[in-house]
Amino acid sequence: MSAPSVVPARPASVVIDRIGELTTNDDEHGGRLRDAAVVIEGDRVAWVGPAGTAPAADDLVDAAGRAVLPGWVDSHTHLVFAGDRTAEFEARMAGAAYSAGGINATVRATRAASDAQLEANLLRLLAEARRGGTTVIETKTGYGLTVADELRAAQIAALHADAVTFLGAHVVPEGADPHAYLDLATGPMLTAVAPHVSAVDVFCEAGAFDEAASRRVLATAAAAGLATRVHGNQLGHGPGARLAVEFGALSVDHLGFLAAADIAALADSWAAWAGGSGPRGTVATVLPACDLSTRMPLAPARELLDAGVVLAIASNCNPGTSYTSSMAFCVATAVLQMGLSVQDAVRAATLGGAIALGMHVAGWRDPRGAVQPEVGVIRPGARADLQLLEAPSVTHLAYRPGMPLTAAVWKSGVRLL
Amino acid sequence: MSAPSVVPARPASVVIDRIGELTTNDDEHGGRLRDAAVVIEGDRVAWVGPAGTAPAADDLVDAAGRAVLPGWVDSHTHLVFAGDRTAEFEARMAGAAYSAGGINATVRATRAASDAQLEANLLRLLAEARRGGTTVIETKTGYGLTVADELRAAQIAALHADAVTFLGAHVVPEGADPHAYLDLATGPMLTAVAPHVSAVDVFCEAGAFDEAASRRVLATAAAAGLATRVHGNQLGHGPGARLAVEFGALSVDHLGFLAAADIAALADSWAAWAGGSGPRGTVATVLPACDLSTRMPLAPARELLDAGVVLAIASNCNPGTSYTSSMAFCVATAVLQMGLSVQDAVRAATLGGAIALGMHVAGWRDPRGAVQPEVGVIRPGARADLQLLEAPSVTHLAYRPGMPLTAAVWKSGVRLL
Repeated sequence: MSAPSVVPARPASVVIDRIGELTTNDDEHGGRLRDAAVVIEGDRVAWVGPAGTAPAADDLVDAAGRAVLPGWVDSHTHLVFAGDRTAEFEARMAGAAYSAGGINATVRATRAASDAQLEANLLRLLAEARRGGTTVIETKTGYGLTVADELRAAQIAALHADAVTFLGAHVVPEGADPHAYLDLATGPMLTAVAPHVSAVDVFCEAGAFDEAASRRVLATAAAAGLATRVHGNQLGHGPGARLAVEFGALSVDHLGFLAAADIAALADSWAAWAGGSGPRGTVATVLPACDLSTRMPLAPARELLDAGVVLAIASNCNPGTSYTSSMAFCVATAVLQMGLSVQDAVRAATLGGAIALGMHVAGWRDPRGAVQPEVGVIRPGARADLQLLEAPSVTHLAYRPGMPLTAAVWKSGVRLL
Repeated sequence: MSAPSVVPARPASVVIDRIGELTTNDDEHGGRLRDAAVVIEGDRVAWVGPAGTAPAADDLVDAAGRAVLPGWVDSHTHLVFAGDRTAEFEARMAGAAYSAGGINATVRATRAASDAQLEANLLRLLAEARRGGTTVIETKTGYGLTVADELRAAQIAALHADAVTFLGAHVVPEGADPHAYLDLATGPMLTAVAPHVSAVDVFCEAGAFDEAASRRVLATAAAAGLATRVHGNQLGHGPGARLAVEFGALSVDHLGFLAAADIAALADSWAAWAGGSGPRGTVATVLPACDLSTRMPLAPARELLDAGVVLAIASNCNPGTSYTSSMAFCVATAVLQMGLSVQDAVRAATLGGAIALGMHVAGWRDPRGAVQPEVGVIRPGARADLQLLEAPSVTHLAYRPGMPLTAAVWKSGVRLL
């Protein structure tokens, strides 16, 4: 494995001036400003205010009336893999149903790949995502499913991704005994991988892990001091969303099949937080590109928001069910087909993802004590993760679906595009 | 108005070698080849055959296993306009219904714009389309709706687009008497614009032009020696598709609301052609991005194909109902949500568009006698309009929705990207 990617040089400070529309997600100051400017110093946002009034900086970028918003925070991907599943996709488009069993095809290819091949593929996918405006990306293990293969996936991911999640409980690998595999994934495999990840995920679904098995995964993760996530309610109704709330998971993801009680449970998890008096709830992460690519129902994002649930939009980039990292495509789909306003969708794809990763507040520490940056927001002190659109407004992300609108990207103050 | 865009220099011949998958649309040779090469000489395809066996050429492009296909043929756009309709789009996403009346907002802005502004906006949009792989583009008048404004729209479009359609019958302009306007659009306006266009279109829909008015538009167009098109069955059931067939229109476009009898009429128009014994039928042009952006039903593309209708996919790029020129987005939507295979969708977005424009056969003459190029196909003699994907197969256009996969584009043998 190589060292982490070389970081390009950056000027000590940059002012992005004449921003036509600035989406900050900083609710204390309105969340959206017209005719604004932003100053970046080092890796942080140093100043936000009216156009033409910024303090002097080493470098100037003229936004010329275009829109600036936080970089996308993609809180759900599976990028450590080899091979692709073109044939399975073609069969699905010809009418075959998706089942979790397809994951094993990628497990075979991933086990057979070298470390260097896995890392090169990860870097290719991360570069694509950055070009599309993504500045924070979570990725999961889950195509190794042996102690050694999950460990190397976590190690490779930790070199390059912003957050790494252990997904040993992705599917029971071919040839394995389900009980013995669960013992492994919640025992020696968890122990080996834990130092390299900040959270544990479980695919709670028919064909993957049932409620009892999922409980065990979540309980052992919590006992190990790790945050939790759940893949739930993707292929049919099930206990995923309610389990996620019960265990205080950071997020539950997919959610195409939600009963009223599931939405209520998610909303209840946020009720105290909304009143300012209680802990955070469980983020509902919707994955529009996956819903389309598996021809599953689109998740009820509008209902979730209306119920008071904090929503995230993520790409679920993976070779089986959603081989795209285009957050702009996900945002456009959420607006055109899931009833969200553009503002709702952009917020879910930036601040929503940050909340799902626990990276929305300054100084939050991950379970191992590492201080996380504040992302998904543009305000002084936050990490300087921004994108400039070739458009006057974020509305164009849905008004112009499919157009590559990302014109410039800064991550940690470094211009990447 | 400026002269037509300067054409970059090109080598006398180029070989694109080691193509992993070559979509030719040349049914005599299977339509799709593995491990192929293409030679371009001047503005034409000179040779197609197995990789590594091409005749020598001045320049070499190594496709390195990637996919090559014809450039997109976008047979339905409205690119001569000023302003945008962001507020109307936002209102629609918040629940307002689309109506044809919104067109008048663009008419006002277009009339107020200078020739230079209209041309600059057209060039911006054409450049975007080319970067997305489009090598042939039709565009329409229809935001002028006075003799002078329709004439200048046709003249500006004719400088830069591959095909120009007169759409005086877009909507009755604000303040005009419907009968008097129809007299104008089928009389002096048609006479003024005819030398600059190859076809006439009519928006046959409630709120625009009814059956009697549409018949008059089509009949006067035919009498003037121009080909015809119809906007039909977009906002509800209506006579558009059947009228198009009756008048032998090149295409009828939109088609979200089709009765069984409409599909049968379109199929009948192709029955003799399919047997090799009769004239061409009327192409059914579906506009997936417009269907999504207006929250209208997706057109029944699968049923149309199954009935034997020749299908085209187009962007309908315009500021009101489909402000995108991304044919890749349209193809992905057609596969993920309209039941087409990737092969079907790619064919509809290339050869289907060419058939809708009458540009699918060598030497076809437009109504004014101008010889048209053969496009939408890669075979010796056809115009060298090709795109190279950053992917091993066209399947990735739907498997990886939203990803910018177009890596290189040639139009008339000139590399544009």
